[in-house]
Amino acid sequence: MNERVTLKNNNGHLEIGGINASNLVKKYGTPLYVMDQTYIEDMCKTFSDTLKKEYGDGMIAYASKAFSCKEIYRIANNMGIGADTVSGGEIYTAKSVNFPMEKICFHGNNKTTAELKFAVESGVGYIVLDSYTEADELDLICKQLSIKQKVLIRINPGVEAHTHHFIQTAKIDSKFGFAISTGEAEEIVNYVKNKQNLDLVGLHCHIGSQIFETKSFVIAVNKMTDFYKKLKLDYGYEFSVLNLGGGFGIYYAGDDAKKSSKEYAEYIKLIANTLKEDVERKGLKKPFLILEPGRSIVGEAGITLYTVGRIKKIKNIKNYIAVDGGMFDNPRFALYQAKYTVVAVDKMNLSANEKYTVAGKCCESGDIIAEDCLLPNVEEGDILAVLSTGAYNYSMSSNYNRNLIPPVVMVKNGESRYVVKPQTYEDLIRNDI
Amino acid sequence: MNERVTLKNNNGHLEIGGINASNLVKKYGTPLYVMDQTYIEDMCKTFSDTLKKEYGDGMIAYASKAFSCKEIYRIANNMGIGADTVSGGEIYTAKSVNFPMEKICFHGNNKTTAELKFAVESGVGYIVLDSYTEADELDLICKQLSIKQKVLIRINPGVEAHTHHFIQTAKIDSKFGFAISTGEAEEIVNYVKNKQNLDLVGLHCHIGSQIFETKSFVIAVNKMTDFYKKLKLDYGYEFSVLNLGGGFGIYYAGDDAKKSSKEYAEYIKLIANTLKEDVERKGLKKPFLILEPGRSIVGEAGITLYTVGRIKKIKNIKNYIAVDGGMFDNPRFALYQAKYTVVAVDKMNLSANEKYTVAGKCCESGDIIAEDCLLPNVEEGDILAVLSTGAYNYSMSSNYNRNLIPPVVMVKNGESRYVVKPQTYEDLIRNDI
Repeated sequence: MNERVTLKNNNGHLEIGGINASNLVKKYGTPLYVMDQTYIEDMCKTFSDTLKKEYGDGMIAYASKAFSCKEIYRIANNMGIGADTVSGGEIYTAKSVNFPMEKICFHGNNKTTAELKFAVESGVGYIVLDSYTEADELDLICKQLSIKQKVLIRINPGVEAHTHHFIQTAKIDSKFGFAISTGEAEEIVNYVKNKQNLDLVGLHCHIGSQIFETKSFVIAVNKMTDFYKKLKLDYGYEFSVLNLGGGFGIYYAGDDAKKSSKEYAEYIKLIANTLKEDVERKGLKKPFLILEPGRSIVGEAGITLYTVGRIKKIKNIKNYIAVDGGMFDNPRFALYQAKYTVVAVDKMNLSANEKYTVAGKCCESGDIIAEDCLLPNVEEGDILAVLSTGAYNYSMSSNYNRNLIPPVVMVKNGESRYVVKPQTYEDLIRNDI
Repeated sequence: MNERVTLKNNNGHLEIGGINASNLVKKYGTPLYVMDQTYIEDMCKTFSDTLKKEYGDGMIAYASKAFSCKEIYRIANNMGIGADTVSGGEIYTAKSVNFPMEKICFHGNNKTTAELKFAVESGVGYIVLDSYTEADELDLICKQLSIKQKVLIRINPGVEAHTHHFIQTAKIDSKFGFAISTGEAEEIVNYVKNKQNLDLVGLHCHIGSQIFETKSFVIAVNKMTDFYKKLKLDYGYEFSVLNLGGGFGIYYAGDDAKKSSKEYAEYIKLIANTLKEDVERKGLKKPFLILEPGRSIVGEAGITLYTVGRIKKIKNIKNYIAVDGGMFDNPRFALYQAKYTVVAVDKMNLSANEKYTVAGKCCESGDIIAEDCLLPNVEEGDILAVLSTGAYNYSMSSNYNRNLIPPVVMVKNGESRYVVKPQTYEDLIRNDI
């Protein structure tokens, strides 16, 4: 079970943000996404305070693809952090709540012309280039709009980190970025440097997702500063910005490391110190440091509440609990065989000694939320909470099987409110002719 | 390349429904789902005519989870077939275009109380039960509404068919159905038989998806009729309906069998003849036969059109083509490593001798549409068509990365029209507070 202070066992009842989960269900029904605002704010503060204290000049940009809706940009803005966006739709959503556009980084391997134009017109702070023709196109757009756009380039430093381990590899097999090792990074840097309407202020890398191995971040910093040094010596380029992306691992279940916000601060401290030492040793200007955590800000802040429906006990084989959600609100088991912690919200004091597979209501065998969970004896009508669903659940949700996407409720200090309203059947056919 | 008559190479240009794909792009833009109405209608007709001719009394029910929107229920209704639905949302959509409710089967391992009530009130023809408590709940709902509801029960006959092979197994490890082999099927039949407000008219099974092995259907018929016989002998039950589900395989790429509608007719003929022989030999009443094809009706009718964006050739490693869609409009590679055939719509006469991986625009490494496709030399701005995307693409689409879900255009005899309008950025924030 998750040990964050925001999730509590209140006499056998799961509490989030000071409210019993079953009270939220009484008010809002199920399936329901619940997000704990205090948790999100704490993480924003932890990241940005640590960056400021340990490094100085820099910016935390919330990677909003993890969870995007109007309210999350309001919260990020209130906490003084920026945002990493990956589409016109995300920029549009941020803009709709007057998010400061200069604090936005715009990423993507294939931004469309319309998206690039929209980003420049909106005054997005940094556009992170990922191809030659994108540089050409953006240069032309900027020329037409008489704007000099700050840009970064996505670089592939040859460090690839996965959950629990990392590899350094010469094989650069990603749709993202330009490899340092092959000379391709150097080529595009020179190419973009010559663009009249683009202001190449630095480089970006992102080494993976759900990373627990701090060493991989250290190596990424080393490789990027080596490259900055090479560019300085060979061409006299001095970059003022370095964007190291995100990828900090969170706790889902089982063997994942359980981190307190203190430990996340250690990540930042390590990166900050490595970078400070590197630039000093390598004779570089200390760059403005951008970090882009997404999952680590919202992931553990979220839980999903379901009502237990049909229970099917197949003798000697498997016990299925079917819930009123499924792969339409959380496709991560179907996509990645992701593991989750599941609890019965009103049976927190009972010993969890029965093994269940929690299945969804979609007509598809692969519609599983979590396999072989240990739970107390569960009955129809019980409420289950799936923990750590704040990232890549709502943002990946669909109307598969024409099920309705659950609403999102934000909780804080015993109060709750919708941040995304429930869909209706009418929404399903809104664009149907 | 797909050999359906509806997809043609018109002097080097891909044509669908009598229209050059690139003309559709000029009119509607990309990404774009295109569905060929003639293909859909032909398949509906093939299935229902063959069922009528080879078997007699029965119904083809289009499995609408494959592709659901108002227009597809209109088309199904015009073709005189029924529909298989799996949620209140699908029933609602069908109802919104006055689809005859008595021709609807309602499936699902965990239909909610609200959905069951909505189905009964709407006059849905058959509700396919999948648990004891569902039977209890439905019985109560029917009592309150003074309606006697026709029901089936989902049975697991112990035949499991996968692409290209099938297995018979004693291990019944599915969230769906009740196993004959363990006696569980018999138990629930007796249970439901005693419900005052439920009229148990027959049983249902569905043995899998994307099945090429006709033998598995024969064995399913054998097992179901064996069970019907046992129930007749042991309890005197005589069922008037048998629902054998769907699962007929379609052509995606490579080794998949390429079927003409004639061959689909052979599936139906085989099932019909097996069933006729079985019921005669086993002394059973000839049941009303329901078959539920979904993918085979709409799958090959659909293509997705994309504009080629950034092309990244990583020397000696991989050539990436990025398109303006991705896992938000087609998550099937990410979910199942599904294979697709990709063509360059205006380079159909050029030899396809370069190997490309077609990637989407999402910020995720797994956002791939098709790996290692053979294509002619492709340039930015070219239009690609991904074939056989009519099933489980639009229906599984999401706003992941806050990308917009592409519209759906129906083509027929050289004419085109929207059946699902394009989403707008405004749609993205419609339910945001």
